[in-house]
Amino acid sequence: MGEFDLIRRFFTRPTPKAVLGVGDDCALLQSAPGMQTAISTDMLVGGRHFFADTEPQALGHKCLAVNLSDLAACGARPLAFTLALALPEANEAWLAPFAHGLLALADAHGCELIGGDTTRGPLNICITVFGEVPAQRASTRNMPVPTSALLRSGAQAGDDIYVSGTLGDAALALQALLGRVALPPALLAQARQRLERPSPRVALGQALRGVASACADVSDGLVGDLGHILERSGLGAELEVDRVLPLLAARAHYSSGPAQFDQHLGAAWDAQNSQALALQCVLAGGDDYELVFCAAPTERAAVQEAATQSDTPVTRIGTMQAAPGLRLVDGLGRSVAPELASFDHFSAANDRPQGPA
Amino acid sequence: MGEFDLIRRFFTRPTPKAVLGVGDDCALLQSAPGMQTAISTDMLVGGRHFFADTEPQALGHKCLAVNLSDLAACGARPLAFTLALALPEANEAWLAPFAHGLLALADAHGCELIGGDTTRGPLNICITVFGEVPAQRASTRNMPVPTSALLRSGAQAGDDIYVSGTLGDAALALQALLGRVALPPALLAQARQRLERPSPRVALGQALRGVASACADVSDGLVGDLGHILERSGLGAELEVDRVLPLLAARAHYSSGPAQFDQHLGAAWDAQNSQALALQCVLAGGDDYELVFCAAPTERAAVQEAATQSDTPVTRIGTMQAAPGLRLVDGLGRSVAPELASFDHFSAANDRPQGPA
Repeated sequence: MGEFDLIRRFFTRPTPKAVLGVGDDCALLQSAPGMQTAISTDMLVGGRHFFADTEPQALGHKCLAVNLSDLAACGARPLAFTLALALPEANEAWLAPFAHGLLALADAHGCELIGGDTTRGPLNICITVFGEVPAQRASTRNMPVPTSALLRSGAQAGDDIYVSGTLGDAALALQALLGRVALPPALLAQARQRLERPSPRVALGQALRGVASACADVSDGLVGDLGHILERSGLGAELEVDRVLPLLAARAHYSSGPAQFDQHLGAAWDAQNSQALALQCVLAGGDDYELVFCAAPTERAAVQEAATQSDTPVTRIGTMQAAPGLRLVDGLGRSVAPELASFDHFSAANDRPQGPA
Repeated sequence: MGEFDLIRRFFTRPTPKAVLGVGDDCALLQSAPGMQTAISTDMLVGGRHFFADTEPQALGHKCLAVNLSDLAACGARPLAFTLALALPEANEAWLAPFAHGLLALADAHGCELIGGDTTRGPLNICITVFGEVPAQRASTRNMPVPTSALLRSGAQAGDDIYVSGTLGDAALALQALLGRVALPPALLAQARQRLERPSPRVALGQALRGVASACADVSDGLVGDLGHILERSGLGAELEVDRVLPLLAARAHYSSGPAQFDQHLGAAWDAQNSQALALQCVLAGGDDYELVFCAAPTERAAVQEAATQSDTPVTRIGTMQAAPGLRLVDGLGRSVAPELASFDHFSAANDRPQGPA
């Protein structure tokens, strides 16, 4: 199967939103009047971002999901994407389910495959995704550029901090798959779904335009990605451990109860702190593809309305503060600060066989 | 050096054309009214598209050049690009010259780096490039979609076929570097420049809007890339060997004369046909990054004007015909058809240590 046959068979589809799709030197997009194009790119490398034997349908889903998650973080509506693919060989038994998983998610979000590149090489999947946001600035917010997109900058001291969905189960599944922790089979299956088939929060992101003051997607871990908001907004934050710990679904659903989860799994992980495993997963796990965002306390009803409208649970976990740094506090406001760093692709300390995109 | 330091040090720059550049979940572009965005993506893999020891400054230049060449083929004006980079290690001695080569070409074309991704992995460089073209259809042409972009479709039987610049020297340099042919040092140095520092024909592409009926860039070899125009336009073509052979600059500049080039180098390549080397390089070499385009014979003066205006030589090499297929003819119209296939990344017959993007 040659390069052009491969593209024709697996990756050429109707593109009603685009002026021109796959098959020419360039694709052509035309923005609707008053709209901006949001653009993000993510590269997933075999053996680093996913196990070499990952089921190709799940992989196809995930490599687009991680890009859609960036659009969600900006509040953009998905439009289109390009796919560049390096493959060790043109293996139809791999390509067919890969394309199926990829395009099923694309169809679910109305995101059209408009172009790409295929070549031989170590497995590498690079997607660039395009979405649209209205250009006019939301009147309630003090944005550095004229846009209604959600940015990492824009949060104010006193803003509430929220996160969507649950956090840390993908990281827990990874630890289990690496043999570092043993999970009951039903919990492992659920956690593994989070690792392999993340659901980008595209509807929530759009519903938060004009409501959230800042937003980022949680791909490298909550501490790291909230850290981007702190840095860009020039602020610090306080997170409440009692609001954060229940976000680990596996812990919340552990049959003998969350305290037993901490005792059985956390203690095996770190005898000094039976909650260390849960905290590590929730705060610095990565691969969550949830949204972390800030909003003024006056927007609490609007945040709940956005959550309801997008059918996405959100949890208030802390407060933005003028003092720099990120503090984790217990119910009495006492610091409970473990040494937690977010995943960094070039930090040797975090080098591991799989990491988030 | 962490991922974020790396991005900050080498890849964060002012982006006056973009609403928002590097540093958030998405970049933001806003089209000027009446303009469309042309998008193309190319992935270059270490050891396949370039030698592992390629000078990083040249590599930085080339990986953007091959993308700009796609914009040129559409007649688009470069605006911006994203860079996704998998690196075996964060090596500053490699990154600094790579970024220098990349950004020097970007600056020369006003093409802003607006986002990207960096990760650890086998060396892989994936660029997605954005340009703009006016949306209104040129009145003289029968385009399938409403655009003034140059497409592969649109050629008519009787149209002249042109190519820009020279062809085949990059492929000749590759053969020399692989030790398959010996070139005089001065010629090798010139040919190697074509391989390692291609000049995308961005100005010519824009000048050809409203003049050319179809256009493609020559990245995989003239036969293959003209083949895309034939397929999309539903036509055949005749190329004149006497107009095509002189396009190999190394042959034209061979100190003892072109016939001696054929005799000395071509004969060593294929004793059956002393011109085989030159023909192979010109027709199916790849890595040229020139433009092949069609225009009605009534547009000859306009084509020359576009060439002059863009300071880019163009050569008329043949004619589009209703009969399908590509024919190579001599001065008497007799067929001289060698078995020449364009480079295809998944065709085993063409498998080689380096190929075009």
